[in-house]
Amino acid sequence: MQKTLRALADGELTVEEAEAKLSGYATTDAGRFDAVRETRRGIPEAILSDGKATEEIISLTQTALNTTDRAIITRIDETEATMLKNAVDDTTIISHDKRARTVIMHSSEFKQPTVEAAVAIVTGGTADLPVAGEAKAITEAIGIETTLITDVGVANLTRMVDQLDRIKQADVVIVAAGREGALPTVVAGLVDAPVIGLPTSIGYGAGGKGEAALYGMLQSCTVLTTVNIDAGFTAGAQAGLIARRIAGDR
Amino acid sequence: MQKTLRALADGELTVEEAEAKLSGYATTDAGRFDAVRETRRGIPEAILSDGKATEEIISLTQTALNTTDRAIITRIDETEATMLKNAVDDTTIISHDKRARTVIMHSSEFKQPTVEAAVAIVTGGTADLPVAGEAKAITEAIGIETTLITDVGVANLTRMVDQLDRIKQADVVIVAAGREGALPTVVAGLVDAPVIGLPTSIGYGAGGKGEAALYGMLQSCTVLTTVNIDAGFTAGAQAGLIARRIAGDR
Amino acid sequence: MQKTLRALADGELTVEEAEAKLSGYATTDAGRFDAVRETRRGIPEAILSDGKATEEIISLTQTALNTTDRAIITRIDETEATMLKNAVDDTTIISHDKRARTVIMHSSEFKQPTVEAAVAIVTGGTADLPVAGEAKAITEAIGIETTLITDVGVANLTRMVDQLDRIKQADVVIVAAGREGALPTVVAGLVDAPVIGLPTSIGYGAGGKGEAALYGMLQSCTVLTTVNIDAGFTAGAQAGLIARRIAGDR
Amino acid sequence: MQKTLRALADGELTVEEAEAKLSGYATTDAGRFDAVRETRRGIPEAILSDGKATEEIISLTQTALNTTDRAIITRIDETEATMLKNAVDDTTIISHDKRARTVIMHSSEFKQPTVEAAVAIVTGGTADLPVAGEAKAITEAIGIETTLITDVGVANLTRMVDQLDRIKQADVVIVAAGREGALPTVVAGLVDAPVIGLPTSIGYGAGGKGEAALYGMLQSCTVLTTVNIDAGFTAGAQAGLIARRIAGDR
Amino acid sequence: MQKTLRALADGELTVEEAEAKLSGYATTDAGRFDAVRETRRGIPEAILSDGKATEEIISLTQTALNTTDRAIITRIDETEATMLKNAVDDTTIISHDKRARTVIMHSSEFKQPTVEAAVAIVTGGTADLPVAGEAKAITEAIGIETTLITDVGVANLTRMVDQLDRIKQADVVIVAAGREGALPTVVAGLVDAPVIGLPTSIGYGAGGKGEAALYGMLQSCTVLTTVNIDAGFTAGAQAGLIARRIAGDR
Amino acid sequence: MQKTLRALADGELTVEEAEAKLSGYATTDAGRFDAVRETRRGIPEAILSDGKATEEIISLTQTALNTTDRAIITRIDETEATMLKNAVDDTTIISHDKRARTVIMHSSEFKQPTVEAAVAIVTGGTADLPVAGEAKAITEAIGIETTLITDVGVANLTRMVDQLDRIKQADVVIVAAGREGALPTVVAGLVDAPVIGLPTSIGYGAGGKGEAALYGMLQSCTVLTTVNIDAGFTAGAQAGLIARRIAGDR
Amino acid sequence: MQKTLRALADGELTVEEAEAKLSGYATTDAGRFDAVRETRRGIPEAILSDGKATEEIISLTQTALNTTDRAIITRIDETEATMLKNAVDDTTIISHDKRARTVIMHSSEFKQPTVEAAVAIVTGGTADLPVAGEAKAITEAIGIETTLITDVGVANLTRMVDQLDRIKQADVVIVAAGREGALPTVVAGLVDAPVIGLPTSIGYGAGGKGEAALYGMLQSCTVLTTVNIDAGFTAGAQAGLIARRIAGDR
Amino acid sequence: MQKTLRALADGELTVEEAEAKLSGYATTDAGRFDAVRETRRGIPEAILSDGKATEEIISLTQTALNTTDRAIITRIDETEATMLKNAVDDTTIISHDKRARTVIMHSSEFKQPTVEAAVAIVTGGTADLPVAGEAKAITEAIGIETTLITDVGVANLTRMVDQLDRIKQADVVIVAAGREGALPTVVAGLVDAPVIGLPTSIGYGAGGKGEAALYGMLQSCTVLTTVNIDAGFTAGAQAGLIARRIAGDR
Repeated sequence: MQKTLRALADGELTVEEAEAKLSGYATTDAGRFDAVRETRRGIPEAILSDGKATEEIISLTQTALNTTDRAIITRIDETEATMLKNAVDDTTIISHDKRARTVIMHSSEFKQPTVEAAVAIVTGGTADLPVAGEAKAITEAIGIETTLITDVGVANLTRMVDQLDRIKQADVVIVAAGREGALPTVVAGLVDAPVIGLPTSIGYGAGGKGEAALYGMLQSCTVLTTVNIDAGFTAGAQAGLIARRIAGDR
Repeated sequence: MQKTLRALADGELTVEEAEAKLSGYATTDAGRFDAVRETRRGIPEAILSDGKATEEIISLTQTALNTTDRAIITRIDETEATMLKNAVDDTTIISHDKRARTVIMHSSEFKQPTVEAAVAIVTGGTADLPVAGEAKAITEAIGIETTLITDVGVANLTRMVDQLDRIKQADVVIVAAGREGALPTVVAGLVDAPVIGLPTSIGYGAGGKGEAALYGMLQSCTVLTTVNIDAGFTAGAQAGLIARRIAGDR
Repeated sequence: MQKTLRALADGELTVEEAEAKLSGYATTDAGRFDAVRETRRGIPEAILSDGKATEEIISLTQTALNTTDRAIITRIDETEATMLKNAVDDTTIISHDKRARTVIMHSSEFKQPTVEAAVAIVTGGTADLPVAGEAKAITEAIGIETTLITDVGVANLTRMVDQLDRIKQADVVIVAAGREGALPTVVAGLVDAPVIGLPTSIGYGAGGKGEAALYGMLQSCTVLTTVNIDAGFTAGAQAGLIARRIAGDR
Repeated sequence: MQKTLRALADGELTVEEAEAKLSGYATTDAGRFDAVRETRRGIPEAILSDGKATEEIISLTQTALNTTDRAIITRIDETEATMLKNAVDDTTIISHDKRARTVIMHSSEFKQPTVEAAVAIVTGGTADLPVAGEAKAITEAIGIETTLITDVGVANLTRMVDQLDRIKQADVVIVAAGREGALPTVVAGLVDAPVIGLPTSIGYGAGGKGEAALYGMLQSCTVLTTVNIDAGFTAGAQAGLIARRIAGDR
Repeated sequence: MQKTLRALADGELTVEEAEAKLSGYATTDAGRFDAVRETRRGIPEAILSDGKATEEIISLTQTALNTTDRAIITRIDETEATMLKNAVDDTTIISHDKRARTVIMHSSEFKQPTVEAAVAIVTGGTADLPVAGEAKAITEAIGIETTLITDVGVANLTRMVDQLDRIKQADVVIVAAGREGALPTVVAGLVDAPVIGLPTSIGYGAGGKGEAALYGMLQSCTVLTTVNIDAGFTAGAQAGLIARRIAGDR
Repeated sequence: MQKTLRALADGELTVEEAEAKLSGYATTDAGRFDAVRETRRGIPEAILSDGKATEEIISLTQTALNTTDRAIITRIDETEATMLKNAVDDTTIISHDKRARTVIMHSSEFKQPTVEAAVAIVTGGTADLPVAGEAKAITEAIGIETTLITDVGVANLTRMVDQLDRIKQADVVIVAAGREGALPTVVAGLVDAPVIGLPTSIGYGAGGKGEAALYGMLQSCTVLTTVNIDAGFTAGAQAGLIARRIAGDR
Repeated sequence: MQKTLRALADGELTVEEAEAKLSGYATTDAGRFDAVRETRRGIPEAILSDGKATEEIISLTQTALNTTDRAIITRIDETEATMLKNAVDDTTIISHDKRARTVIMHSSEFKQPTVEAAVAIVTGGTADLPVAGEAKAITEAIGIETTLITDVGVANLTRMVDQLDRIKQADVVIVAAGREGALPTVVAGLVDAPVIGLPTSIGYGAGGKGEAALYGMLQSCTVLTTVNIDAGFTAGAQAGLIARRIAGDR
Repeated sequence: MQKTLRALADGELTVEEAEAKLSGYATTDAGRFDAVRETRRGIPEAILSDGKATEEIISLTQTALNTTDRAIITRIDETEATMLKNAVDDTTIISHDKRARTVIMHSSEFKQPTVEAAVAIVTGGTADLPVAGEAKAITEAIGIETTLITDVGVANLTRMVDQLDRIKQADVVIVAAGREGALPTVVAGLVDAPVIGLPTSIGYGAGGKGEAALYGMLQSCTVLTTVNIDAGFTAGAQAGLIARRIAGDR
């Protein structure tokens, strides 16, 4: 602790960095940022844009960059992303996936982790790609090589069977599907890696906001676990936790 | 009409048979029996035991036999079935499927119809058999050769693929499934006959009384129609209506 | 296969057409197009506009035209439709139904199929017409003569009875209804063709997004099967599968 | 008040009768009995057996007889009814409808009211009779001539049309139906009396405990009001209130 | 019939009027108008604007005026109402209630009916007024003197008790309430007229779209019937049917 | 701590008592008993019988008596209660409320607390008494004088108004009601003490398992908080926490 | 009463003030204002902006100021707030919290009450602040010192434990949380003040509009009561009622 | 294949064993047994007793023993378990957990696998033990050392914190909880192993059949995946798949 306080006194740390080192979180106008989540939990803290004002997003992003050299922003729309990109330091390295609505930023000092395990993300249809993309942003941020295998819906099993060998190479498989959500069940019957079902809010009529997909995955007659509807971040982060264990990273 | 009334006067018809011929239904203590449904609708009237007293079942059965030479009783438990079997004329030909909870009776004068079309009934697991059996009782009563293909759940696609050729020989396919109800979707993606999804109340937890299966079939990304949970009679009767059209029987 | 490859080498086929012939689907930026669905399933693949960007719709439409000489686009709004119409080849024959939100296109080489069976589509009210129109677009694309009988809601049985003879001439009847969804039940009690209930999202208050209509059709005391709320495409395609069997087209 | 107190002092009134006269209710071990409901509301208080111990039913029944010369007991099973019948004074006049699960008792001094208006109760099927019977018990207790028209479900409109003239003679029509609950809508489209929809818990699968029927009636495209599932008492009592107004009884 | 045809031949009737007289409905581009509903059912046909295009509303309005000398339009927004008002004949008498979103029109030949019975419409709060207003528009169109008693919610019983005498003068009472929907229960415990509960979509959170109010009315421990959420037209029309019977108008 | 260990060594404490003193809970075969809840939370720990075997109930009861001189057992049926009563020490003082399904036991050394504040528990009907009784058992165990005011349902406001003065004397009011659950709203509009709504599972049909009552209380247009359906213990314990604060007991 | 009437006659009171004094409410164009709620109930009447026109808000605000020297407006958007601020007398003291969407106004004669008890409002995350702010506006208006403790979600218990001492100083604790709503349960296990759970509509997917949080609080294995989703006003007012009792203010 | 056929011809294999080796499943009267699931999926096939007749359970058990030297039977009641134990060969080694309702059998030739990874199963209360026990039976059958940590519900965080070190030693953590289901969220905030939420059907009232727990886990503000309510087998099997990957067993 003395070391941290001395660094603060010497101007080597900002107040915010010192607070993060001492208490585990940094207090900002927009709330507290959990700066040691990655150390404690093995997964980086992400900033969920939904329901936050642009200034709050910017403030939290800067705190994240200051305390962890990285910021992961999810569910951000294009206007906000542009404002955010303008607000940060010019040396910040920025990756923006418009379809997945994610922005990943890191300072030049950031050291990208590598996790020696493979994740496959499989989708039923084109409409599942934003949610799958959010999951992929997280697994890649954690440092995992991630394969995206798209458009292998159960309406035409041939398309899925053609991709089966690629799916089998993964250590963890995330399967995103909307409508009746049958794809995770079919995949889980054919591979021996753990499968995470990721229901998407694609569909219409009764059960069409992802409920039919969610219930179908919960009722699956094969073995899989599931996350909430459209919860790409959670699926990716859980895959990350499993991958890190597999890689022996802790 | 004169002919009917004369036959009644001559004692060749009972009052009940005469009423049925004239008005289309026969009035009994247990309600009206729709004696001309088969003529009007192409599918025989069935007597649903659930919620009826044993005497009511017996009364309606006798009316059915008197007016149409046949009685189809569904959802009947074993005790009631025994009492019913004892109550009818000795010459009645009886077929009782305990698992499907159906009793089919016909008088010696009954002429079994034949419909030149094939129905396949496919089930996901052993637990779906009672409901599938109810559907099969109806398609067979209509006169359709019916193939039952069991235990081809999606947890192991091999089992289904092994049976695909048999399924493809059918003109109409009923697929009964509980849990996540994915089987009708997978089958409908592989055959070109019309598929009727028949959700069963097999499962547990959220969506486990057949709702997950039903919603999954309604949301199917392939083409199929569905009936209510456990509605074996309806699935079989609709298959019958389609088969009769295919066979050119009307 | 050799033949296909040779045609590709000779420039008679595009890569996309060759892929479609060999694998059954064509890969585009906007996803895979199931080019042999019509062969495998007897119903044409449709492009659902909802949730797709305009470029994705155009890309899939061109693939469909290239590989099957036809494109069926559903749930397309007017602006998208205009852009799509401008994007295709001038020789393309275009049919756009604004109320049903469908666009059907075919190249000059397309050979319109004919299925010798009749479908009737019956609606409860004016507000059910868009959904009924989507169903009609599909049955007609399959090649079936389709009669649309409108505004025969159960609030005034006279209107329905007046149309009964026309309904009875059909081999398959689709009945679209919102609110309490009683019309399919009433129609199914009067005809001997198979009836497909098509619940629409017309109504308000409890059960008013089509749920009351859907549950009413599932609970029907007559025989019918149902599709999801507003699922005009599914109802039309299922009617098409049945009609083709009746016509002996397979 | 003086008169009541004097009668009590003179032993002409019991404490319970005096309390009822003065406060409008009588306090018993089993709760308070609303002795002036009939005066205040125009409909008699009924004793709902469900969830009450047999002694409580007996106690309330005796209070009802003491204070209003009549007791109406609903949803009573046969064992309880037998115990209740044994518990009351020999001169009590008892009417017990086992199917409707109602017991009506009145002392010899009771003066049966007469309301000059007609109610018809129409049912879809045999299984709706217990609930319809509860409604009928109430309308008749109020003094209204009540016609029960059974088994006119929409699966066969002929049966309903045959009874239409009888239905049209009523001033108020109660229509009890389960399954999809379409009958009240069809009836309300054909008559000009007010129709009360009475959904019953007959059905199975999705919406099968009466919800489909209830929602169907709430969404009806004709004009009707509805009561809760199986609420025979409420339907009958509301019909009674309307009938009394029509008859000019208040 | 001859008379009608002759009048048509002589140009005294339009085709539409002749059709209405002969078949009971008039066919327009926007659907069939039920011109004899008032005769058959005792309540006028209304044109529900929701989900109709402005031209359809205008077309149906003109048909209504042509065949019944009156048009009742509900749930119409201000822009549509302005266009509609401009579209009709200058001699048409127009009444537009913006809050209730109703337009009532009649030709100069229209003879306003009078029904000798009184309806009271009671509301819980200001926010219930649009729905209450729709109900009032209908009862007044039927010819019933209607008293609107506002803002008597149960949060302060004093406000309600102050109005009780006015409520008691009505032959039929409609009580509109959102939130917990307790007001109809409290009113129905105090009056002896039939009470119709009219739940409104006022509230928030769990059950806040009117479901809490609807379920509360269905579960009411007093006697009342209910209509669907926001169903002002239905509540008013049912009150009208009851009032006409009370008045002896049929 | 030394003192506790010495007492254990000297045989003055059992192992279980010592563990409770040191860690705050006592480990038994049937789970851990939270012996310091009353100190920490101000409300005694209760043993919920539902879902526990009789031996588990007995074991936890004995641990409770050993560590806190008192045991509060809720939702216990009569057979279990008899076995439990036989299992404890003869000097144990036992209070068993069969209708509320509670057993309260204390050792002769127990010192009954007294809280100087008053709670009133108000019920809508006889059927609400078991749940109200559970609440009363808890408030009395906490040491609060509790008044039970029964059968004041909103169907007859007179009954409630008659009891209003008694209700107003309480510092905290619990109002138990099933069906439409309007009573807490009406009471809360008339008193200035905090009101806790306690919905009961009394009712039938739609919303009849207490949901209508719960949603009604959550939507209340007056100020009140609520607990889950039938949660008598929670309502009583919360009233206890408030009462202790009012009494200045902490 | 004479005094009030004289004051009116002398022009010392407006008609509105006189009505409020005599009847307890003031009638305005926008509805009745409950001017004696604070006297009767101990909590001030608030004006809910949702669903009211700006003129209605202004009219009710002026009545509130005239009759109680204070106006509390909730759920008001910025445009309306600006118009409202312009509409009132220049001497009015105004406090506007944009995030909480509340406006509090008082005349210069208003005497701010003081309640000697402390309330803590704890939130799970930044997104819960608007709802927490509404609660805080009410407790402060009642005169209670209120501490807001933010961003102590259960995902990182350290953050909560750090604030525990501050929470323990409160007499009543409101805990606002969305998502899974676990925070009130965790807090209630650690403090001995009464806890009010305030579920917020923060979340997504299944249960994401606050239902998961609400159900979690209702099912809490600790003792707490709850209010409806986003019901900041109700939570604050109930805390106020409890605090006033604790302070002995009545 | 030749080898298998020869072994069959030589009587070294039964027909059933040979079928299992060749096709991957063995056909029995009670359905097909997936004999290669363990090879294909890494988790053993289990026999779910619910909904099967005792003979079917016995038949499938014997097939399992014959083809895989092991049988895992879940959700079996005591009577069935006794019959099953009597039916198998005397040399079978049997382990029966009555509370978890599991029976594990293996032949003397069975070689117990060992997976070098640790699983912890954490429960909120005693009532969660049956479901937790089912999960433990599966992880142990897979060969994983499994620690059961009971009764650490969130109502008293001390109990959980005391066990935290033991929980942190696991590679995968299953957390079983009913009621509000907050425990998995709290645990997942404190450890860096993947957490699987296992909601149990413990609770009452709204959301009390495990729905509140399930929705709470799906909405968790920490990272975890979930399985269906009471799905002990699925949770255990998924933990097994993850553990095997971690151990490098595939």
